[in-house]
Amino acid sequence: MRSLQPIADTLERLANGKLSSSALVGACLKAIDDPAGEGSRTFIRVDSESARRTAAELDASRPKSPLAGLPISVKDLLDVVGEPTAAGSAILADAAPSERDAVAVQRLRHAGAVLVGRTNMTEFAFSGLGLNPHYGTPRNPYDRVVGRIPGGSSSGAAISVTDQMASAAIGSDTGGSVRIPAALCGLTGFKPTARRVSLEGSLPLSSTMDSLGPLAPTVACCALIDAVLAGDDPKALEVYPLAGLRLAVLQGYVLDGLEALVSSAFASALSLLSSFGAMLTDVTFASLEQIPMANQKGGFSAAESYAWHRPLLAENAARYDPRVLSRILRGKEMSAADYIDVLNARKRIMADAAAAFEGFDAILMPTVPRIAPPIADLEASDAAYFDANVAMLRNPSIINFLDGCALSIPSHMPGEGPVGLTIAGLSGQDRKILGIGAAIEAVLATGGRAIHGQASWDARA
Amino acid sequence: MRSLQPIADTLERLANGKLSSSALVGACLKAIDDPAGEGSRTFIRVDSESARRTAAELDASRPKSPLAGLPISVKDLLDVVGEPTAAGSAILADAAPSERDAVAVQRLRHAGAVLVGRTNMTEFAFSGLGLNPHYGTPRNPYDRVVGRIPGGSSSGAAISVTDQMASAAIGSDTGGSVRIPAALCGLTGFKPTARRVSLEGSLPLSSTMDSLGPLAPTVACCALIDAVLAGDDPKALEVYPLAGLRLAVLQGYVLDGLEALVSSAFASALSLLSSFGAMLTDVTFASLEQIPMANQKGGFSAAESYAWHRPLLAENAARYDPRVLSRILRGKEMSAADYIDVLNARKRIMADAAAAFEGFDAILMPTVPRIAPPIADLEASDAAYFDANVAMLRNPSIINFLDGCALSIPSHMPGEGPVGLTIAGLSGQDRKILGIGAAIEAVLATGGRAIHGQASWDARA
Repeated sequence: MRSLQPIADTLERLANGKLSSSALVGACLKAIDDPAGEGSRTFIRVDSESARRTAAELDASRPKSPLAGLPISVKDLLDVVGEPTAAGSAILADAAPSERDAVAVQRLRHAGAVLVGRTNMTEFAFSGLGLNPHYGTPRNPYDRVVGRIPGGSSSGAAISVTDQMASAAIGSDTGGSVRIPAALCGLTGFKPTARRVSLEGSLPLSSTMDSLGPLAPTVACCALIDAVLAGDDPKALEVYPLAGLRLAVLQGYVLDGLEALVSSAFASALSLLSSFGAMLTDVTFASLEQIPMANQKGGFSAAESYAWHRPLLAENAARYDPRVLSRILRGKEMSAADYIDVLNARKRIMADAAAAFEGFDAILMPTVPRIAPPIADLEASDAAYFDANVAMLRNPSIINFLDGCALSIPSHMPGEGPVGLTIAGLSGQDRKILGIGAAIEAVLATGGRAIHGQASWDARA
Repeated sequence: MRSLQPIADTLERLANGKLSSSALVGACLKAIDDPAGEGSRTFIRVDSESARRTAAELDASRPKSPLAGLPISVKDLLDVVGEPTAAGSAILADAAPSERDAVAVQRLRHAGAVLVGRTNMTEFAFSGLGLNPHYGTPRNPYDRVVGRIPGGSSSGAAISVTDQMASAAIGSDTGGSVRIPAALCGLTGFKPTARRVSLEGSLPLSSTMDSLGPLAPTVACCALIDAVLAGDDPKALEVYPLAGLRLAVLQGYVLDGLEALVSSAFASALSLLSSFGAMLTDVTFASLEQIPMANQKGGFSAAESYAWHRPLLAENAARYDPRVLSRILRGKEMSAADYIDVLNARKRIMADAAAAFEGFDAILMPTVPRIAPPIADLEASDAAYFDANVAMLRNPSIINFLDGCALSIPSHMPGEGPVGLTIAGLSGQDRKILGIGAAIEAVLATGGRAIHGQASWDARA
């Protein structure tokens, strides 16, 4: 795998004519079609013809739009006019074609992006590992020999970027589904505050916690895509100076069970940030323990997905991924009062978080406690699957529960198993978190840790 | 019953020294204490001593605050520092005293109001009739001989104003609990958009649909109290000119089963408004029928009240009003998916309403289809009670479901059974609805219909 090109560089080459969109999109389509590659497991549908046509039109008209000519992949849960939205399922593979684009897709097109296709995902986005029994599971670029999980649910999204089938990908994140695959695959992923990007036209998992965000090579890439998705005027990201930044290092169960590569990467990152003048404080958030307690019956995702799937399940339960089905069905056992208890607990815990993190610029934690495990191990064992799933979702889902925003950036040494560092903020602090993330990314780079997908994994692949 | 004094007149007399707060508060307390009156059933607690002391202080200091010296009653579900909040129940009669005032109470005090006491209500605010087996049911002023219901749940609130035990009352409205007693007792009641007045420190029925609003003699009275409750700077209400106003006359089940007095009052009001140049259009809101369908398992009130009461019920179910208990327990049977279905239906129906009523300045309908029935009939029969309750809540609850705001103003002929005309708006149109209501109130007055509690009921009492 070659080093990934930051979007700004690609856009500059497109703008000054050193690269045509047709050539770039052609290269992406070629990577997808490579029979030795992951394309068939990464995309559920490839829009070759329309992508080539759009690229040619953009090469001819050369608009000044912010993503003009850039190939982007979208997760299979976003409506694209004329295509069914299956969300990685078999049941909906033949659903009626969408009558209009999702708002996020509209905005991408309006910004000049070229949609190359719909990416594979955990069925209905309901798990953090990325396994899909219907369409296959794309392999993590870190270790193609063993075949490790990409992370999920935005599994194809991550691989479409690592394998240069798209310059960036749009994923969804309900409990970590952008950040987990970003962390496990050595990418940068951004989960915005849920209300920041319209979810109109996206198939829901949890209407309370769903959010849409990018997976891309760098923080600046994510910031640009995020601005387009949010309908903001894209402008240069304000990078925060590290010196004097007040960073809360979250304590408690988020640090339990870290694999050696994760704990050493995390410790190194903290020490580097300190050496650059950031003020790090260990913060024990007393209400943290209440989050898993509030979710013990399945929380928003179980209740809200069951409500959405109830009519479908009546006839089609047998066609679901059984592991996904079992998680949806937890919602059937929840009473209205159970659900309202979760809503009320969330309000209380969010208020506690506002108090606990007041005075801090961002919150740091490891994105996930482990590096990507082998696909075969998880396919073979329900116990291993659910154990890994709980572990992967544990940290990122905190931020969805708090209605916050978070970035995961690579923090591993080149050649080592990818590890993500999370930089999180509370509700609405999206641009600030991106600005802080950009500063941290630069320091990790000078500290010798991986940035923007630069990796020496080829030796192993 | 003498004609009720609009608040502005009382405030002017207080300001120019023609009336002291001590004298006014003294007269209220005397009315409450009158053994021939309704005081003992209207108030659950009377704060005689603190009211007299506050009045004396205000007489001495004469602050320029907007309600300086004005006696106000508050519904038993609002926290007042040092007092238990029982919400009309026996179970919570000995609850721990509140440590602070509800936000609404803070604002009233800050505006110079004198709190005379806590008014009786349907237990836990869960019914529209006003019957209370623990504290008695205050009788509607229209017909003290037969003893008709005051309407509820803000029953004592209404009677505290009609019987001059307070200049205005604060009620809560989850499905009509301010507007029903206002309509049945010949008062003006205003239910604001739920988020307009903070509910902090009020015991909830439905956290989704609860709202706090005034019952008072006139629209201008309600507008002043509403501004104080909302934390707005109280200023003179902008009265809309009637000519050219586009008023939607809601069709469908809201016009079913109207008693003769109600239908004739409604027809007369519409014809008067037309004659003054308002443009009335019959509007069939296609999604109206979906509201009772969405609520068929009990809706927000059942689910959310059950969630709140679940811990209390474990030990104390036998001490609830059985009629209230049966409504709360409907929530026990609701699943999380049922509740989420209601949330989703509401979103859809609210969007439909925004489209259907675009271009209209307000929506008109009868507040309730009947005049107040005799208390004894409803006490004697569960069937009669639930039939009347459904009838009374039917129209006003539409506005809570739509997250709107609504005024009920008297529209009956003097001496006849009180009938309310509802002027409603969608979310956030509070001041506009008050301004339109003031114009309609003036026209109904010139048309010879009752205004501000003016009534010739004394002959019957």
